[in-house]
Amino acid sequence: MKSYTVAELLNSETLVQEIIVKGWVRTFRANRFIALNDGSTINNIQCVVDFENTNEDTLQRIGTGAAVSIKGELIESQGKGQKVEVKVTDITILGDADPEEVSKTVLQPKKHSLEFLREQAHLRTRTNTFSAVMRLRSSLSFAVHKYFNENGFYNMHTPLITGSDAEGAGEMFRVTTLDPKNPPLDEEGNVDYSQDFFGKETNLTVSGQLEAETYAMSLGKVYTFGPTFRAENSNTSRHLAEFWMIEPEVAFMDLSGNMDLAEDFMKSVLSYILEHNPDDLKFLEDRLIQEDKSKPQAERSEMTLTEKLRFVVDNNFKRVSYTEAIDILRDSKPNKKKKFKYLINEWGSDLQSEHERFLVEKHFKCPVILFDYPANIKAFYMRLNEDEKTVRAMDVLFPGIGEIIGGAQREERLDILKKKMATLDISEEELWWYLELRKYGTAVHSGFGLGFERLVMFATGMSNIKDVIPYPRTPKNAAF
Amino acid sequence: MKSYTVAELLNSETLVQEIIVKGWVRTFRANRFIALNDGSTINNIQCVVDFENTNEDTLQRIGTGAAVSIKGELIESQGKGQKVEVKVTDITILGDADPEEVSKTVLQPKKHSLEFLREQAHLRTRTNTFSAVMRLRSSLSFAVHKYFNENGFYNMHTPLITGSDAEGAGEMFRVTTLDPKNPPLDEEGNVDYSQDFFGKETNLTVSGQLEAETYAMSLGKVYTFGPTFRAENSNTSRHLAEFWMIEPEVAFMDLSGNMDLAEDFMKSVLSYILEHNPDDLKFLEDRLIQEDKSKPQAERSEMTLTEKLRFVVDNNFKRVSYTEAIDILRDSKPNKKKKFKYLINEWGSDLQSEHERFLVEKHFKCPVILFDYPANIKAFYMRLNEDEKTVRAMDVLFPGIGEIIGGAQREERLDILKKKMATLDISEEELWWYLELRKYGTAVHSGFGLGFERLVMFATGMSNIKDVIPYPRTPKNAAF
Repeated sequence: MKSYTVAELLNSETLVQEIIVKGWVRTFRANRFIALNDGSTINNIQCVVDFENTNEDTLQRIGTGAAVSIKGELIESQGKGQKVEVKVTDITILGDADPEEVSKTVLQPKKHSLEFLREQAHLRTRTNTFSAVMRLRSSLSFAVHKYFNENGFYNMHTPLITGSDAEGAGEMFRVTTLDPKNPPLDEEGNVDYSQDFFGKETNLTVSGQLEAETYAMSLGKVYTFGPTFRAENSNTSRHLAEFWMIEPEVAFMDLSGNMDLAEDFMKSVLSYILEHNPDDLKFLEDRLIQEDKSKPQAERSEMTLTEKLRFVVDNNFKRVSYTEAIDILRDSKPNKKKKFKYLINEWGSDLQSEHERFLVEKHFKCPVILFDYPANIKAFYMRLNEDEKTVRAMDVLFPGIGEIIGGAQREERLDILKKKMATLDISEEELWWYLELRKYGTAVHSGFGLGFERLVMFATGMSNIKDVIPYPRTPKNAAF
Repeated sequence: MKSYTVAELLNSETLVQEIIVKGWVRTFRANRFIALNDGSTINNIQCVVDFENTNEDTLQRIGTGAAVSIKGELIESQGKGQKVEVKVTDITILGDADPEEVSKTVLQPKKHSLEFLREQAHLRTRTNTFSAVMRLRSSLSFAVHKYFNENGFYNMHTPLITGSDAEGAGEMFRVTTLDPKNPPLDEEGNVDYSQDFFGKETNLTVSGQLEAETYAMSLGKVYTFGPTFRAENSNTSRHLAEFWMIEPEVAFMDLSGNMDLAEDFMKSVLSYILEHNPDDLKFLEDRLIQEDKSKPQAERSEMTLTEKLRFVVDNNFKRVSYTEAIDILRDSKPNKKKKFKYLINEWGSDLQSEHERFLVEKHFKCPVILFDYPANIKAFYMRLNEDEKTVRAMDVLFPGIGEIIGGAQREERLDILKKKMATLDISEEELWWYLELRKYGTAVHSGFGLGFERLVMFATGMSNIKDVIPYPRTPKNAAF
């Protein structure tokens, strides 16, 4: 007898006389109808128990949360709500679930708060919402690898433990094996890192970009997809101490090529889930619609989840210079009427998500790529324009969230890069290898970074970043 | 005019009148022949310069390592050694490379030691060997994702920073933001980790398995592919402090299914590179043949690289119990003649790579899966057999390296798991969530772990693990 997943049974073109299916009981009603789920799909398969011919003890043990193995026949459903169902001929309890205990967990079939679900993160993927989110996360992850593979990119694993803190993208975590209480000190009384595991002070990386550049400048097109870290003490719905980043980097590509890549990439991965995960998206879309009903009109979404995804997939991304955007924002209604929290008065201001969303949702009504930002609000490695006050940076802006991608053409000129580093007090000694890329056949090259969890939030409509990663790491929390 | 990669030009079915190609000069000879490479393939394209109509300054600057942009025509090659070549009509120097400086680097076109290449890890992918290795690494990485995606697995990102050290797989790195010199102390004079970033002592993970089990027990089939860490002070050709692991975990699958999965998976990913990377494999195979010539007969490989890959792809994996293997080894010639470094005298010994290789290369002449190991040499979470002295563990053994995969059916019985943890002094409090998986619908489940770098070593024939990861992390070394 062959084993099938729930997804295989639900999608079966034919009826099957003898099947085995294993999974967890979501609900059991009228001593007859098991809603069985095994994680292969958001949908349950209905398994109909012949209760008259099933022993009492077994019937008792078929409860929410129990793991069961079912033998039976896949037949046309006798009831409505499903096309097929399983007529159970034999059922074995693999693992019990005490109803009393279950009632204290998120397995109990009712609505739970997201906070409560986070406390039981080891069980929350047995609920519809979180299984849908994590299946989508997995699909997006595959779509990322597939896109780059099909487009001639090589995947590269950049180091997590780093001896340099040059990028300055944020606070770092120290990695050490020194005695925590009595670290060895040098003659000047400072911690003697030469005795640490790596012979120097090391931290967890904030970005793999600089290393990715070294591979782009040899292999042509590369991308990273790995964890990055920020030791920032911000406990918000948008910050994690540990999150995953995607960073493509391409030799001989300028900023305009970078914009093409970002647009094509985002359209491709979102199209992938529209094609491959319709059931999960439908469930999450309905969830958001329900949620919206309890909100005041002004806070409700203007677009459904699918509409938001299609907004990205179907529209051209509008490319606008920072300078042009500032003009638009300065003259905008919310700025004049002081509706923005941060008013835009002058060229040089950093944009907030309220401004980014205004440009996308109200002004252009399509995804927007801003470029040529003021040099002094962007990182040292971005290529200086001829005007000497802007750099070839770009941010991709999406509805609902604002910036989702940040990228740039990199400064490929050794002398200008050195000057910039000197100004910012970045050590040439530490980044000797990064500088050498500009010494041995330098060339125009560009890339961008995308926080993977931001993408998953956008694609699932979840509003807290802690709900789109299996086990979130945040200040005072490293549970599981 | 359209830009092409070197790979596109070399594989072009037709000749093309106007092309642009950009890359780095590998060699330039007779003031005429540029061997150009852009990382898209191990092969260079020959670009023939019309030196009489090219200005002297440009000709001077076309040297090894320089980045150039070439316009020209793709024509049938006039010389031999290649089918097509580029007749250059225009050449622009994008980035110079001073020949004097180049001669001090690994860019210089001659044989360099692997040690020297490691010191210049930011440039080593501009050599044939390392570009081939890293393209293969990337291909293998994609093959892993592709295999699992096609077989209904969900990718899962397990946390890197962990508050538990329960797995006991090795020494860990501490992750902290406390003042390194004067950490806060509690009333008893110990470091007060409640003031650390996560409110407790945290470390870098040694495995994502326990967390992966939580997702298998809800989503059915999952896998992780992420970095793991060991703070072990071993500076060998087989150890890294930071390396990537692949860990599938499947609900309702027993040890026999786990063996099927491991065999099918390994065959699939190695078939993938045989199909997609013939040029890189050919180059590395020839490299090994050359290397072997300088070795005494006894140390030479019995198989070429391709033969080793085919040995895995074409043979059935022989499944042998640990007990049977011990009998074979005890009675083997090398054991009787005391040729093994570690002699096998009794049931219960841990096997060394010399024993594993004997079984694969001499005795069975095929990949081997050993199973049912003594409980006391394996981890706490492996399922105890009815004999109460062996566990449902398995190791997959390959030629040349011995163990490449370690896996097990997991202990799904709450009472037995608790007893085992108590014996080993593993805290129930810390692993409450892991225990709860056995409380709410427990079921048979299994999985395995594969060190990705071990796979890349096997697939490329590289003998030092530092040469199969971009920037290796080892004791006293966190360069780049």
